[in-house]
Amino acid sequence: MGEERSNLQHCKFEVPEIIFGRGLLNQIGACARRLGGHKVFLVSDAGLFAAGWVDRAIRHIMDAGLEVILYDNVTSNPKDVEIEAGAGEYIRHGADVIIGLGGGSAMDAAKGVAILVSNGGRIRDYVGPDKIIRPLPPLVLCPTTCGTGSDVSQFAIINDTENRCKLTIMSRCVAPDISLTDPDILETLPDEFVCTTATDALSHALEAYFSVASTSLTDVHAIKALRLVSNSLVQAVRERRPDDLENLSRASLHAGMAFSNSLLGIVHALAHPIGGLYDANHGSINAILLPEVLKYDIPVVTEKLPELAWGMGQAVGVSTSAAAEIVQEKLGAMLDAAGAPRSLRSIGVQREDLPELARRALKDVCIVTSPRQAEEKDLLAILERAY
Amino acid sequence: MGEERSNLQHCKFEVPEIIFGRGLLNQIGACARRLGGHKVFLVSDAGLFAAGWVDRAIRHIMDAGLEVILYDNVTSNPKDVEIEAGAGEYIRHGADVIIGLGGGSAMDAAKGVAILVSNGGRIRDYVGPDKIIRPLPPLVLCPTTCGTGSDVSQFAIINDTENRCKLTIMSRCVAPDISLTDPDILETLPDEFVCTTATDALSHALEAYFSVASTSLTDVHAIKALRLVSNSLVQAVRERRPDDLENLSRASLHAGMAFSNSLLGIVHALAHPIGGLYDANHGSINAILLPEVLKYDIPVVTEKLPELAWGMGQAVGVSTSAAAEIVQEKLGAMLDAAGAPRSLRSIGVQREDLPELARRALKDVCIVTSPRQAEEKDLLAILERAY
Repeated sequence: MGEERSNLQHCKFEVPEIIFGRGLLNQIGACARRLGGHKVFLVSDAGLFAAGWVDRAIRHIMDAGLEVILYDNVTSNPKDVEIEAGAGEYIRHGADVIIGLGGGSAMDAAKGVAILVSNGGRIRDYVGPDKIIRPLPPLVLCPTTCGTGSDVSQFAIINDTENRCKLTIMSRCVAPDISLTDPDILETLPDEFVCTTATDALSHALEAYFSVASTSLTDVHAIKALRLVSNSLVQAVRERRPDDLENLSRASLHAGMAFSNSLLGIVHALAHPIGGLYDANHGSINAILLPEVLKYDIPVVTEKLPELAWGMGQAVGVSTSAAAEIVQEKLGAMLDAAGAPRSLRSIGVQREDLPELARRALKDVCIVTSPRQAEEKDLLAILERAY
Repeated sequence: MGEERSNLQHCKFEVPEIIFGRGLLNQIGACARRLGGHKVFLVSDAGLFAAGWVDRAIRHIMDAGLEVILYDNVTSNPKDVEIEAGAGEYIRHGADVIIGLGGGSAMDAAKGVAILVSNGGRIRDYVGPDKIIRPLPPLVLCPTTCGTGSDVSQFAIINDTENRCKLTIMSRCVAPDISLTDPDILETLPDEFVCTTATDALSHALEAYFSVASTSLTDVHAIKALRLVSNSLVQAVRERRPDDLENLSRASLHAGMAFSNSLLGIVHALAHPIGGLYDANHGSINAILLPEVLKYDIPVVTEKLPELAWGMGQAVGVSTSAAAEIVQEKLGAMLDAAGAPRSLRSIGVQREDLPELARRALKDVCIVTSPRQAEEKDLLAILERAY
């Protein structure tokens, strides 16, 4: 069952305090209070408000004796301007703790606000590794989808609206103080987002597992995430049983713990420029790219394939060549059965943009940990096949 | 391969920043400096000093531009009086960061000093969960054995010399800021301690896996630790290959991450009073008790046994009843092959003390998460069988 040695002799592993369990949204105020907060700046999105979860969160925060300022002017692929406006609101109200409640967009926006209120400037000033100097205000992140991993990760991905590109901020500072997950919230998540966010978690797990920076500390979480998604994705979309939804929520957490520490690969290196240019759904892009990137990576990750096949539900004991077939077949079948989009064309990508997307992906930080070195022509070929 | 549901719906998971890799002792000063320290209080033990590691550590700390005060007046099963004296030294020298370099004893002593210098009083004042009020000074822990897990855990175990018992302190405060492991240090660890500390890691993994507070977040680490110990313990003791020693070091880390969050069971509930009464080696006590406690636990953990058997090197697909035989057989064979002590008598325990030890174990905090509820007579029976 795979190798006991990691790819890198040296490893770092860092995750925030994690609290996970059904019904635990009621702890949201207690978490903020434990971090010393009195006035909460709650970053969320309007969709969640419609489902009633923001109201509940506000009540729990007030029950803990704290004040709340709601900021829900956040869209998907959160924008620099939304975050800069949010930072202004935080300061104007004199808030002292930030809660991000939502999908990756709301949580990354909360991280962006946290950076700006203590460090000033514009969000683009913090692009790249470790550009944040001053400590951030206390931060609690509560995911309400099953894919982003932002609630445990050392990344924030924000759209630069002038240059129509994604800004990637990497710093241990942007991991929250507390990651609080209540899987019950998934009950109101539309089917489409159950599928696309869980396939985001799937791509996190797979890319983290293949990453050249993977270690035994990240592999155990990546494989667990793969097992959970493989067991529950299709049923969760079709039948929405609470146990399956909880498994996806848990998968997102495990995958986040893995990729935050091992980083990612070509799927995300390509998904970032696509998301920047088209404002398209991140999970959908990943679901489309994943099979093609898997095919591209396979020749250099053969020894990891039997354990991967096991993670995807195959009995153990298959050869590496059989495992290569099996993982591709299982992935394709799972994405089809879950109703994931399968072509870039279907989500509005323009064919004439592919060369520019390949060029931008080569500069994305996620390319660094890809198990197989790629040139521009390789990335373009992947995009063409996924088109 | 086992259940995807955890025993508890609600879970918490918290680990410090982890840095792991051969040769990384040279980062010890940089870690202390990054935490804002200027004058390091280095808690270690004399054995390590003889092997030259303390000298190296001091040089690395000074190379990072920091001053060092060495405190190596720490014995195995660290004593309240040693810690109280250490706290006095820390204050007298005006130190501002603590490094614990050693086995569980040196690291638990470092935790104890950290508690006292910011909270005052005597170490026994902090027994039980969450008794620490004021924040501790920055703390870096560097394990030099392959078993304790203290470098990632939320526990400190200290001997009360007046009452000849172990004091258990539980608090997230006593997890360090940074856990730094350099497996190269194991090269000078005597064979006997390779065996006894690795069997301590083995007992952490097994008890964490069976604990009623285990979750998917702890299970992945417990199983990984079991796999690593099963693959490398015997070879590490016999041949001392660096790869096997590194695997044991990594196993200790994974097991620590598991048990710090899921807690333990009867092995540790019994090992604490035995260690308190006889000042005996903790890993030896665990190795002796583990087979008997496994046998006692088996009827209530049947569904976990196939994955446990796999973790111990068995091919998958065995029935639960076959797995029960297999795990007991494998554990016994591994302990014998590694030369672990196998009877309480052999380490100096007096038969007439067994009833008192059973009584004390019933009050130990580790009994709470045992998968099988035990009465005094059950604990006494386990002790009798292990005698």
